[in-house]
Amino acid sequence: MIITIQCKDRVGLVAQIAQVLAARNVNIVSMREYVDTVNNNFFARLEVNHSEQNIALYDVLQQILPTEAIIKINSEIQKNIVVLVSKEYHCLSDILVRNHFKTLGAQVQCVIGNHAVLQEICTKFEIPYHFIDHNGIDKQNFEAQILSVINTYNFDFIVLAKFMRILSPSFIAGFTHKIVNIHHSFLPAFIGASPYRQAHQRGVKLIGATAHFVTNDLDEGPIIAQQTMPVNHTYQPADMVRTGKEIETAVLIKALQSLFSDRVFVYDNKTIVFD
Amino acid sequence: MIITIQCKDRVGLVAQIAQVLAARNVNIVSMREYVDTVNNNFFARLEVNHSEQNIALYDVLQQILPTEAIIKINSEIQKNIVVLVSKEYHCLSDILVRNHFKTLGAQVQCVIGNHAVLQEICTKFEIPYHFIDHNGIDKQNFEAQILSVINTYNFDFIVLAKFMRILSPSFIAGFTHKIVNIHHSFLPAFIGASPYRQAHQRGVKLIGATAHFVTNDLDEGPIIAQQTMPVNHTYQPADMVRTGKEIETAVLIKALQSLFSDRVFVYDNKTIVFD
Amino acid sequence: MIITIQCKDRVGLVAQIAQVLAARNVNIVSMREYVDTVNNNFFARLEVNHSEQNIALYDVLQQILPTEAIIKINSEIQKNIVVLVSKEYHCLSDILVRNHFKTLGAQVQCVIGNHAVLQEICTKFEIPYHFIDHNGIDKQNFEAQILSVINTYNFDFIVLAKFMRILSPSFIAGFTHKIVNIHHSFLPAFIGASPYRQAHQRGVKLIGATAHFVTNDLDEGPIIAQQTMPVNHTYQPADMVRTGKEIETAVLIKALQSLFSDRVFVYDNKTIVFD
Amino acid sequence: MIITIQCKDRVGLVAQIAQVLAARNVNIVSMREYVDTVNNNFFARLEVNHSEQNIALYDVLQQILPTEAIIKINSEIQKNIVVLVSKEYHCLSDILVRNHFKTLGAQVQCVIGNHAVLQEICTKFEIPYHFIDHNGIDKQNFEAQILSVINTYNFDFIVLAKFMRILSPSFIAGFTHKIVNIHHSFLPAFIGASPYRQAHQRGVKLIGATAHFVTNDLDEGPIIAQQTMPVNHTYQPADMVRTGKEIETAVLIKALQSLFSDRVFVYDNKTIVFD
Repeated sequence: MIITIQCKDRVGLVAQIAQVLAARNVNIVSMREYVDTVNNNFFARLEVNHSEQNIALYDVLQQILPTEAIIKINSEIQKNIVVLVSKEYHCLSDILVRNHFKTLGAQVQCVIGNHAVLQEICTKFEIPYHFIDHNGIDKQNFEAQILSVINTYNFDFIVLAKFMRILSPSFIAGFTHKIVNIHHSFLPAFIGASPYRQAHQRGVKLIGATAHFVTNDLDEGPIIAQQTMPVNHTYQPADMVRTGKEIETAVLIKALQSLFSDRVFVYDNKTIVFD
Repeated sequence: MIITIQCKDRVGLVAQIAQVLAARNVNIVSMREYVDTVNNNFFARLEVNHSEQNIALYDVLQQILPTEAIIKINSEIQKNIVVLVSKEYHCLSDILVRNHFKTLGAQVQCVIGNHAVLQEICTKFEIPYHFIDHNGIDKQNFEAQILSVINTYNFDFIVLAKFMRILSPSFIAGFTHKIVNIHHSFLPAFIGASPYRQAHQRGVKLIGATAHFVTNDLDEGPIIAQQTMPVNHTYQPADMVRTGKEIETAVLIKALQSLFSDRVFVYDNKTIVFD
Repeated sequence: MIITIQCKDRVGLVAQIAQVLAARNVNIVSMREYVDTVNNNFFARLEVNHSEQNIALYDVLQQILPTEAIIKINSEIQKNIVVLVSKEYHCLSDILVRNHFKTLGAQVQCVIGNHAVLQEICTKFEIPYHFIDHNGIDKQNFEAQILSVINTYNFDFIVLAKFMRILSPSFIAGFTHKIVNIHHSFLPAFIGASPYRQAHQRGVKLIGATAHFVTNDLDEGPIIAQQTMPVNHTYQPADMVRTGKEIETAVLIKALQSLFSDRVFVYDNKTIVFD
Repeated sequence: MIITIQCKDRVGLVAQIAQVLAARNVNIVSMREYVDTVNNNFFARLEVNHSEQNIALYDVLQQILPTEAIIKINSEIQKNIVVLVSKEYHCLSDILVRNHFKTLGAQVQCVIGNHAVLQEICTKFEIPYHFIDHNGIDKQNFEAQILSVINTYNFDFIVLAKFMRILSPSFIAGFTHKIVNIHHSFLPAFIGASPYRQAHQRGVKLIGATAHFVTNDLDEGPIIAQQTMPVNHTYQPADMVRTGKEIETAVLIKALQSLFSDRVFVYDNKTIVFD
């Protein structure tokens, strides 16, 4: 069982939490604690062995922790996700394969795409694909259609697996720290579209990718994971795109696996990730 | 202040430790705990803010922890090291420069070499250099001379910065988990001498280095840090040696800095490193 | 068009090759040349723009080069592969997805497995799957069945995508430098079975994978690509296996893409790879 | 001997060059050629074995190559550098140590600093240190003093080893592609001062460094080498600075060693680096 706690820090917090657990014969197998001393915040992730019902533990923790504390107790209950895509297959395929072989750490409920091209691969893996064309309709209407589809599913997170369209503030507002995007650059370098063309023009020797939560500021949400890979003078923009896809796939899955195993906390537009 | 604890695990251990600290108004700024559930061992490293004398805390912790517990409480007291070298300059120079600018995390007490070649660089940095020639004397005599020198210094660790000679079991027995070596390969590949020649012959595409504690089994002690770097077909053995030196320098300093900041535990010929 | 040449070196070789091309108005867009001066071998890979028939160029090059020269001229003709698997899905799935979206650089002709478990994923991607049970038959018979299947396909390479069975010398003899294996360790560390268990027991801080050509010596064939990834004390053998799969997938595809784009030469149990 | 050639491309160029060499019995040991097909530029680096005088070869090459061709023929003649520093020791110390042990690939002629703090380490290594205070004088006067010092030395390159001051266009104009800077971020992210503070605020998961030629646009010159290293939520700005120094040291030396071994070409604000 995984317990995560996020609240204001005070002396004795760990003692109180540990006592509650010890009193119920719950053993702490692994514990990560971090105090952001600048902002006086406490973050903890505990892996415990237990023989007690979750709900009771939650209530007891709630009683001893500050009132605004965010407590999560996760047993084996699988997370659920919906995936939004456009035309690129690499991130989606990686998710679908892992989902199929039950190593994703979450269950893909459906895939929504604004092009028809990725329908076939979803069908192969027996995942519902909803084609929602963005042509001829405004963003409000487009997002309303997305909402009407995803609201028919239970889900914990929305994964933008190369969705390539900017969601409106009102859409995002409904899913704070629930939407994960893979951006095709080492943010904050090359914000916005065509980062590989920008990277090629600048003559960089590394390209990167960034997985982050989506907020209203384009590509400015809390970063979960980043990675870079070497490139050289022989790389044309198309070669950078191709290499970039390998990094994008790797970074997105890394971020998702941290997220699905309750290792990611958010505070003040930054993440705490207990790898 | 850093507190490290290593002992058998039991339910409630974290609670007891945290209570002891909280009762004395000691705040836990950062805590890493790991339970080796296979062997039932508990390892913890706590960074705390305090206003109490160390010795009192030690006694209290000793009372509540299992009798065999290894408790260390480290304030700002600097670690001391002696460094053993042969002819290669790269690891030693890196240590001397950092020592000079007070960023090593330890104080170099002296350097001992079985060649005269590195005397000059030590003199530049005003570090005592003891030349102990291994020629014409047996290993017992050679090591006795080393011992007679190092015993005139206070030190916490012996660093073999490319010492290139195998120490005898009786020498090593006196310094369990106190001797750190940098081995010029990604152990356990290429144990023993000439690893780069072996690596070249095998046509590997990566070369590596390994920092480890020295035990009686050659190159078989607990590994603290490892790193690899790409090589290719153009690398002759001499090129591998040159590239290898970059990795050796980086890996040794990484291991030392973990060690000097009390992040390394040893159990069952393995290390727990809280990076 | 890609031209690769491997032969004994002599002064003037590049001049002669370049002249032959220039005389036919063939422009060299990119050239990699390497001379193994120890063994006096010449390796070259040229990307050229041309408007001439391949066969003519081949004949002319053959005339000017040493008689034993290995000359390959590859136009857009796709390579073909057969894939041998056992029960693990990760390498195969990656190959199947790229094959499906035509970014593999080769065409998968069929998959052969000694278990039935991966039949389904092949069927999804409309790739013939041949289940050849190794139970109850000897190796000779098992391999004869494999041969009888693959001989019904045209193929350039046999890819062992976690095949987990040792092929006999007589099988291998028929496919010199045509069989690529992914080994689940950083060779030459942990040769043989259960490398992750060995790695865990040794307490390594990195795990790796190696893609290599298969020769008669187990895991001793020419290495094409290697990669490592950090692990730590929290990794149980099962965690190492899981992380290892990520590296295995990445290393195998890297090796295959080098191979399929004619960047790999073999000499004296080593590879020259022009990345 | 190393020969480098940069000129407009045309069919037959390699043939002509190789013929010139073959006719003089010069053997090409290793050759890297790259054609920028977009801009029709040809770049080549050849390692050759020869028994002829350099000057003759230069003249012959000049005759056969386009008039604007940049030809360089480098024998064992060592490059010379001057180093500009401010207060940080890490890059300078690395350069001084390698210079002392003759593994830098260049000879340090002198060090110029706008603070006195690094005088001591230069004196240890018997390298002239010139303290030029920037206080109380304008940039023009400051740079005039630097020029008057460096003009007393022969040098090929000016290395800004954490110089931390922006040079004026008129100063830079005198040394096109002769000034190398180490910038403490993964450009183009975090241009300008305080990149680590910016990086911390953005919550990045990697920090980087960039070695580049200096041009009039701040931090916008051709990039020679870049590297990144992982960081996490526990990194305060000071920790990022400390880790950043390790990367800065590694990236600057990598760039310098490429430069000193004639592996770096510049065209159109980008570099071609034949590693």
